[in-house]
This record gives sequence, C-alpha cells and structure tokens, in this order.
Amino acid sequence: MTAEPLLELSLETAGDLIRRRELSPVDVTKAVIQNIESQDSTLHAFISVAAEPAMEAAHDAERRIAGGDYRGPLHGLPIAIKDNIFTRDLVTTAGSRILADHVPTEDATVVQRLREAGAIVIGKTNLHEFAWGGTTDNPHYGQTRNPWDTSRFPGGSSGGSAVAVAARMCFGALGTDTDGSVRVPSAFNGVVGLRPTSGRVSNHNVVPLAWSMDTVGPIGRSARDCFLMLSVMAGLDAADPSTVRAAVEPPRWGEGAQGLRIAVDENYCFTELQPDVEAALRSALNALQGLGASVVPVQLGDMAGNVAAELTVVASEASTYHGRWLRDRADEYGDDVRLQLELGEMYLATQYIQAQRYRTLLRQSTLAILEQADVILSPSVSFTAIPVGDTRVRINSEREVHAMTAVMRYTGLASLTGLPALSVPCGFAGDGLPVGMQLLGKPFAEHTLLQAADAYQSVTDWHRRIPYSK
Amino acid sequence: MTAEPLLELSLETAGDLIRRRELSPVDVTKAVIQNIESQDSTLHAFISVAAEPAMEAAHDAERRIAGGDYRGPLHGLPIAIKDNIFTRDLVTTAGSRILADHVPTEDATVVQRLREAGAIVIGKTNLHEFAWGGTTDNPHYGQTRNPWDTSRFPGGSSGGSAVAVAARMCFGALGTDTDGSVRVPSAFNGVVGLRPTSGRVSNHNVVPLAWSMDTVGPIGRSARDCFLMLSVMAGLDAADPSTVRAAVEPPRWGEGAQGLRIAVDENYCFTELQPDVEAALRSALNALQGLGASVVPVQLGDMAGNVAAELTVVASEASTYHGRWLRDRADEYGDDVRLQLELGEMYLATQYIQAQRYRTLLRQSTLAILEQADVILSPSVSFTAIPVGDTRVRINSEREVHAMTAVMRYTGLASLTGLPALSVPCGFAGDGLPVGMQLLGKPFAEHTLLQAADAYQSVTDWHRRIPYSK
Repeated sequence: MTAEPLLELSLETAGDLIRRRELSPVDVTKAVIQNIESQDSTLHAFISVAAEPAMEAAHDAERRIAGGDYRGPLHGLPIAIKDNIFTRDLVTTAGSRILADHVPTEDATVVQRLREAGAIVIGKTNLHEFAWGGTTDNPHYGQTRNPWDTSRFPGGSSGGSAVAVAARMCFGALGTDTDGSVRVPSAFNGVVGLRPTSGRVSNHNVVPLAWSMDTVGPIGRSARDCFLMLSVMAGLDAADPSTVRAAVEPPRWGEGAQGLRIAVDENYCFTELQPDVEAALRSALNALQGLGASVVPVQLGDMAGNVAAELTVVASEASTYHGRWLRDRADEYGDDVRLQLELGEMYLATQYIQAQRYRTLLRQSTLAILEQADVILSPSVSFTAIPVGDTRVRINSEREVHAMTAVMRYTGLASLTGLPALSVPCGFAGDGLPVGMQLLGKPFAEHTLLQAADAYQSVTDWHRRIPYSK
Repeated sequence: MTAEPLLELSLETAGDLIRRRELSPVDVTKAVIQNIESQDSTLHAFISVAAEPAMEAAHDAERRIAGGDYRGPLHGLPIAIKDNIFTRDLVTTAGSRILADHVPTEDATVVQRLREAGAIVIGKTNLHEFAWGGTTDNPHYGQTRNPWDTSRFPGGSSGGSAVAVAARMCFGALGTDTDGSVRVPSAFNGVVGLRPTSGRVSNHNVVPLAWSMDTVGPIGRSARDCFLMLSVMAGLDAADPSTVRAAVEPPRWGEGAQGLRIAVDENYCFTELQPDVEAALRSALNALQGLGASVVPVQLGDMAGNVAAELTVVASEASTYHGRWLRDRADEYGDDVRLQLELGEMYLATQYIQAQRYRTLLRQSTLAILEQADVILSPSVSFTAIPVGDTRVRINSEREVHAMTAVMRYTGLASLTGLPALSVPCGFAGDGLPVGMQLLGKPFAEHTLLQAADAYQSVTDWHRRIPYSK
C-alpha cells in the first residue's frame, strides 16, 4: 500500500503540512479514496463514499490555500460522517431502509461547521440501524467488521466511523453517542472517541435516537485530533435550544498529567472485566501516575440501576420519535430494532420519569465525587470485541454475560449524567484486540480529559499501530 | 375593625415605617393575628396559625432593629406560607391527611431566606390537596372562601395564600405555581401573583406536584411587594440543581411603561372570555398605552394542545411522586386527587415524552414572539370566581364549559414554557369579583413584568380596595 506513510499521519500533522503547503489536499484525498477502495469491501465501514464531491472539495481547498484563504487545521482533510448526521446533497440513511432515499437539503450544524473550517466530507459511515444497537450488524447495509480481526464486531452504533478512523480511511470522523455509541466502537477499534458534555455540540439535523441523551462526538487517532474537530463543532446553535454558549478551553498540551486527580473506585473499575482489560487498565493508570497524576480512592454510588435507567429512557424516547413509522412501516425495520421499539411503546410515563429522576440523583452524586477529583477512571468496556454473531461474552472463567447489556456497564455513567467522557486506547489484549480506557470529567471540562489522554499518548504508541500492517 | 389602617399598608410602606422605627413589628403582628382571628373562621385561609412563634419573632425583630441589626424591607413583617412549603418546627401538611403530622426539621430554602431577611412566618395557608386542583376545596382542612363573595371559590391551588393577602391577614404570601396555582387565585382574589422563570427560585423542601413545572412564587398586594419577596427568595441553591445563578434585576420604578412593547393576539386574548373580563382587560391595555406602551399585533401558535400537554405532564409526574402512597394509603386521599393520580398512572412514556416535546416547540415559538415584544398580554383567567360547588362556568350566552380545564386556558403558556408570568388586578366584573391581567415575559425578565404592573398600579387603585370593607 504505497499511500501508507501519508495515511499514517495524524490529522494534526497532516493539517500542519497542508498549512505549510508541503502536502496537497488532492493527494491526501486521492490516497484516502484509494484506501477505502482497497479495504472497504472487507470492512464495510461506509454506506456511501462521496468520491467525486470530495475530490472537487480537495481541488477547491488546494486553490484556496494557494490563494491565501486558509481555513484552519482541518482544511483539506477528509472526514467521515456517521450516516445519521445530515449531509446536504448526500443521502443520509441513518442505517435504515425507511430513509434509504433521504437526501437532505441542509447539512447538520456540525457538518456545516466542519465544511466552513475546510474539512472534506469523504463519505457516510455505517451504523447500527437508527443508531440503536452495539454491533453495527446492519440488515440493510451489511456488517461492519473490526479491522484488527475481521471475524469480530466493531462495536456500535458508530461502528463505521471508528473503523474508518482505525483503518486510515479518513483523518477523523463524527459519531453519535447516546449510550456509548462513540466510546464503545472507539475502544474496540483502538481509536480515541469523545462524548462531549450535553449541550456542548448541536444535534440539529441529526436523526435522533433519544433526545435527552443524544450527543455528537469526534473520533480520531489522538486526543489532539479530537480536540481539533471538537473546537470547530462546538458551541451555541440557535437551531438546537439545548446548546449553550461555552468556549472550548484549550488543553495545556505537553504539560503531562501533573496534578491530575484520578478518582478510582476499585469495586466499580476493576470488577466484572476481562483479566487482559484489567491488566491494560492498571498499567495505563501506572503510566498516568508516572506522568504526575495522583489516585483518589472513591466509592461511587450504586450503579446497579444504570442499565435499566438507560434502557427505559432510550426505548421510551426512541419509540416516541418512531411512533408513526412504527405504525405505518414496521416491516421495513430490522427485527432487533423493531422489537426494541415495540417494547419501548410499553413503558409507562411513571417508569420513564423514575428513570429521569434516577439520572438527576446520579448526576448529583457524580458531581460530588468530581469535587474531590478531576476525572473518574474506568475501562471503556469490560471486554474486547466479540466474534460476529455472538450475543454472550465470557468475562472470566466464572462469568458469561449478555453482551448487549454488559457493553453498557461503563459508558452509562456519562450518558445518564450528561458529563463528558473519552475513550483512549490503552493496550491490546492477548487476542490482539484493542482495549480502551475511559476518563469521565466535569461539565464542559473536555480539555481536562483531552490533556490527560494526550499526556498518556505522548508516552505510549498504542494509537500509532495500524491494523492492516500489524 | 380597629386595626384596619395599619393592615391597609403595603409590605413596602410598612417595611419603610419599621425601618424608620415608626411602626412596631409587635404591633403589626398583633394586628395581623387579630385580623386572622376575626376573619378566618369564615375564610379558612389558614391550616395553622403560628401565633406564638410569630409573636416571639416580632419581639426579636423589634429588639434587633432597635439594636441596629436591621435586615431589610421584610424585617418584622408577617408573611403567610402555603402549606406544601416546609417550615421548621411547624406542621407542613401539603393539604393532605397523609402528611397531617409532618413537622419538618428544616425550612424550605425560600422560607429560610425569608427568615434570614427578617420576615415573620405567620401561618400555613390552605391549598388544594397536594396542590393538585383549582378550587381549594380541601376535604381535610375545609373550603377556603373568596373574601369578595364568600359563596365563591377562591381558585387554587394556592387559594389560602391569595385570600390571606386579599383579606389583609398577612403582608405577603408564598404560593406554588405548577399550572397556574399562583396566578389563578391571585386573579380571583384581586392580588398580584408572580410565577418566576423556571430555575429562578429553589424548590428545595417543597412538596412536589410535577417536578418539571413546579415553581414557588410570591403573592402580594402590589408589584413592588412581590419584588421585595422575590429578590430575597431567588437565586442559586446547591440543594436544587435546577436553580441558576442569575441576579434579579431591579425594575425601574416610576418610569411608567414607556417603550414597553405588548404582544397582543386578538384571537387568543379576546375570545372565549366573559364580556366583563374582556372589558376590564381592554381598559387595562388602554391604560398601559396611555403610560407609553405600544401594542404589537402577533399571532401566537395554536394553543389547542396546551391543556392536554399540561395534564399529561402533571398527572404523570405527580403519579410518579405519589406512587408508593397510592399503593399503600390510597384511602387517605380525597376522591378528586386520588382519581387524578390513578389516571396519571395510565399514561404511556411515549405520551409523556410527546407532551414534553410539545413544550420544547411551544417555548421556541413563544421566544420568537418575544423577540418582537417585551411581554405577551392576556387575561389571567377568562372568567371570575365561580360559586362554591359549581363545576361548569358560563363564558357567554352561548358557551358553558368545564371550569377545571377552562381555568388553565391562559396560565398554561408560562407553565409549559418555563417563562415568567404575573397576574395583576385590572378591575371588577359586574358581580363585584376581581379580574386579573396576565403579563408573560422573557426568561429571567421578571423586572419587566413587575415594572409594567407597577406602572399600571400607579394609575389604578384596584389593588387598594379591601374585600371586608367594600
């Protein structure tokens, strides 16, 4: 693969070379398209590839930059967009048959902002149908495959976006995270995924899964790449009343993790996870301590209700959004999503409200923990990617559990509380599959998470490994 | 009634006299207690009167003020508290049998702040059981009666608080407003009632009716009196995560209504209301224009869904809060409230979420109207207080409607959107009963409402009339 050296560049480095006119957006975009052509028939990360418009945008970027109209670090770089995020003139299916022919007349606010910053939309990535599921086994657009082992699931629902980043089929991607949909596939594919604070990033023109938990988040090779995308996407949007006016504070890159207080709940963090995941996480925690961080032992509240609260909220809200289609076009859904939507119609208002009250209390107790510490550490997922087709996962010699709920064990806390959380690669298990570490932070303190992850990435190279050349 | 002249003073004037040591808190409190003793066996505004602790507090205020420890304009003045708001060491029933013996160990945040400002808790006012209804016909504590005509309902649910203010049995009162419970009785009893912006005032230690719509609001004889109470009660409270840090801007008293833009939707404002209410409201609008205000003709969106959305949200949330009691102690509720709670248990989550989505859209369209205008005008209620025992009300020669839903016609907009709204007396109907005008404003713009109401009150004397001497 001749384009490899170019494709191995991070978004940050490539952007820097473009700014200095040492790298051509046209060459970069060509290389990415070639890589997609070579790999995607196996990986199925994309539902559609916008090769022609992307090449046009690349030529346009090249002309503008040559003419002095440089838009910033994303200018001329191919970004992949999860296919539930509106792209003007590009079909946006949300992974569904119902929206198979849906061509938006408007971009989502996040896409509009990326384009204004000069980013090139390279294609639309595969997802679990309507973003509701964790396998990216899509009955209409195929099974996205994990590039580290194509017999494995990529996680989901933003499976295509995480795989596209991992396999260097783009320089960064957007996913959406309702109950872990950015962080789970980021962990399973060895890339960095950020769920921003609720209200940080606009959801305007994003197909909803569950309004009160949906967020759009960047997926990149490094914390720095995620920051570059986040800072362009974030901020008040009149079209989304849930957004707030709050500047994204720049991380203090290069200052390590000096003074960072990491909350660790041994019972929460290190139980019910695969031994290899535990080993990788403990080693990552040691590395952070070596960088100046300190551990604050804490006891998080009882998390036993998290999964039930998440399922109640997501199912109820999703069924509200899908109500009309569910009546008129039920047979166009895949079986798993249709069943979930039908179940969602059975919840009582009192159950839903109890789940929302649970979230309020959980947020209060979590914010109290975050008065003693800057971040809360956990694995992103307690296991590595499971084989395609499996529904259960072996945690250890004694425990085998249902994967669909076990996968939400650690991502739920941020989803329920609206707090920001990031998954960063922290090693590989014995089976060669990536492991992710999750850092959860205070409201609007994405910079703290990104700075810690960057410090960690400065002394590790997990994120530089490439699946197709392993 | 020898105490009359003293009791006719506004909170503001009485406070001023106390500050100048020309009026004694002890004399004031005695006069109030005497007035309660003389009138409340007829009006039933109070569930409990705290005569002894109030007299102790009055003596304490007198000593402190004499000693130079003056706490501000509320110091030494008797305030009545709706009985769903916690008062330390004073029974707080929420108008229920279930909480008949409930003596809180803590004040509600609003009560604590009033006490710190020197206000005297004179007693706990009657309400519709658990604040869920508009008649203050309480099966456990009696029917509160309208002082303008004791054969009439006082409105509710804060009926006791509004009656206590109207009949001069206190200098101001606290009510709670979920779907009109401050504004409706204020209109029916000829006093000023303010529903603050959601998030403005803490709900900590207030028995909830419906979390997403509950607010605590002041009831007073004038806009200025309401401001004095609001400015003490408002502000961030760590114990209530829904509160925000936002200063209460002082109204520019005495500047009239110069430049005030009043949005009027003729179809919304002047249809489906009693002719006398319409006449009073049109005359009030003229008066405001005479004070410098201008009318902006607008078309509000379709309000047809308001009542359904309100009932869905309130019923669902109330049934969630009451779930355990409803199972274990159903026979202790009054029939009307038990039925509503049982109905509330039947709502589906999807219906509740649709109602919440309706609220989001209604807020967006209302905020758009408020870009062209400062306030939205309407009656507070489309009719005057109806006879005790009636369930239907005649709007005009052709229309007779169900009072329970008709009473919410105008109050719903603020409750659903979380925007502030105030009811100010604007005349009397032919039957001698007070009429209220509602002004609804922008988020956290209570000062605009209060200033407009004050300008109106400076040229009218509806609020100076006294029911017992009419």
